[in-house]
Amino acid sequence: MIVGVIGLGLIGGSMAIDLKRRGFAERILGVESDPVNATAALKMGLCDELLPFEDCVKRSDLVVIAVPVGAAVRMLPQVLDIFSEEEKGSKIVIDTCSTKSQITRVVHYHKSRGRFVATHPMAGTEYSGPWAAMPNLFDGRACIFANTEESDPDALDTVERLYDVLNMRPIYMNADNHDVHTAYVSHISHVTSFALALTVLDKERDEKHIFDLASGGFSSTVRLAKSSSDMWVPILTQNRENVLRVIDTYLEKMKDFRDAIDVRDEEKIEDLIHQANRIKKIIR
Amino acid sequence: MIVGVIGLGLIGGSMAIDLKRRGFAERILGVESDPVNATAALKMGLCDELLPFEDCVKRSDLVVIAVPVGAAVRMLPQVLDIFSEEEKGSKIVIDTCSTKSQITRVVHYHKSRGRFVATHPMAGTEYSGPWAAMPNLFDGRACIFANTEESDPDALDTVERLYDVLNMRPIYMNADNHDVHTAYVSHISHVTSFALALTVLDKERDEKHIFDLASGGFSSTVRLAKSSSDMWVPILTQNRENVLRVIDTYLEKMKDFRDAIDVRDEEKIEDLIHQANRIKKIIR
Repeated sequence: MIVGVIGLGLIGGSMAIDLKRRGFAERILGVESDPVNATAALKMGLCDELLPFEDCVKRSDLVVIAVPVGAAVRMLPQVLDIFSEEEKGSKIVIDTCSTKSQITRVVHYHKSRGRFVATHPMAGTEYSGPWAAMPNLFDGRACIFANTEESDPDALDTVERLYDVLNMRPIYMNADNHDVHTAYVSHISHVTSFALALTVLDKERDEKHIFDLASGGFSSTVRLAKSSSDMWVPILTQNRENVLRVIDTYLEKMKDFRDAIDVRDEEKIEDLIHQANRIKKIIR
Repeated sequence: MIVGVIGLGLIGGSMAIDLKRRGFAERILGVESDPVNATAALKMGLCDELLPFEDCVKRSDLVVIAVPVGAAVRMLPQVLDIFSEEEKGSKIVIDTCSTKSQITRVVHYHKSRGRFVATHPMAGTEYSGPWAAMPNLFDGRACIFANTEESDPDALDTVERLYDVLNMRPIYMNADNHDVHTAYVSHISHVTSFALALTVLDKERDEKHIFDLASGGFSSTVRLAKSSSDMWVPILTQNRENVLRVIDTYLEKMKDFRDAIDVRDEEKIEDLIHQANRIKKIIR
């Protein structure tokens, strides 16, 4: 199968590596708008060939849209338009975005909607660009399939096989539910991490102190603050309502802690920590 | 040298392991108030012998206080009292607590103050108890020495050697400054992590969703929320003023994010993320 990957960054590049070496793709065609990233991706062998967008879509059996969700929402209808012009109608397009409501809504009535499978492979690191791409990134992680009832069964079959090759666990979910749940367990932790970095950089003017004193705990909590704005600005604005709701709950919890510390209410602090400790049973 | 370790948990236990196998301690005497932990520590070989507090202090050349900071503040004067009753006055006691102002203040005028070296080895995991103890925990991390001018030079020499054996980088700091800086780079990240766990557990009633959807990013951000209340209640109350000040700055930053998302101000969100990204240059 010829796989076209649009956006050869962390997700697209990592997918290209494993789909090729695990035999799912016999050839990877790439599209990369940034000229430096394009040259790097080709040199690193993430794709066999770089092409303009339209050529790539026309020559691929399966197209992976792996660009930030703002661009993906503009690009997906264009891909489906090209599919519609063709005769046989056996091509497939997937996206890999972290929000699913808007991207499924924008093509809901498209005549080639059935050829699109909306997916969110939940894997990644805080790094981006072709340099961040790596083998085995997806192994063992969850991949969400959204609104699969809107996809053609053969397209869904192929995409399930693709993620099986990437060793991902499939989870099926409605797009709107996806956006609610990812706001809780993914988007909020990026916002809290950005805010933590801003706080430390603001309060601690001497960077040497941060470097010297940052323990493993701080480093892991602030890790996501290295994430790129290209990816996160569209996620946070597209998932605005859900993210705001979670931020408000979070601010209440922070306020509970602040108040308990303020009045030295040790029992209350202990109670809050005990409640938070329940996460142990769920995460690892 | 005979080393007495009071509190055979993560820090005390890990220290016992490395001090013994690296030849600094020829014998480890242990004190452990929790009977289950005591049995486990002995079975696991963290110490050669378990003793009551006073016997341990009397028979050790160097005493390590590795209990939560509330208990440590009560225990340290008792250790120095026992030292004072003895003739030769060559014994040494160190603490390993995460706050340094109160513990240095409480013995400031003690006649054996010189035998105490206040230290904070900045290493750890989110786990606790003798089961959490591990070799090499301290390797390559920073150890803060606070108010060293109040310690006898020979005591300081020995303790510097001890941390050298543990492969730690010494950093010298005034106790009050220590508490300001650790509030920024360590204590705040525990509070934000506890609050994140509380938020997710509150909003996401179905634990299966958390388990399924938690990405690596969420797991690392929420990791510290597994930390024990025994350790963190006294840290947060002892370092109250500094922690409150940092929480307030943090709440402002969260508010900035919230407002920018609320009005869909993409430029502002991008600007905040770019500022937060500066942490990349400092942390790894």
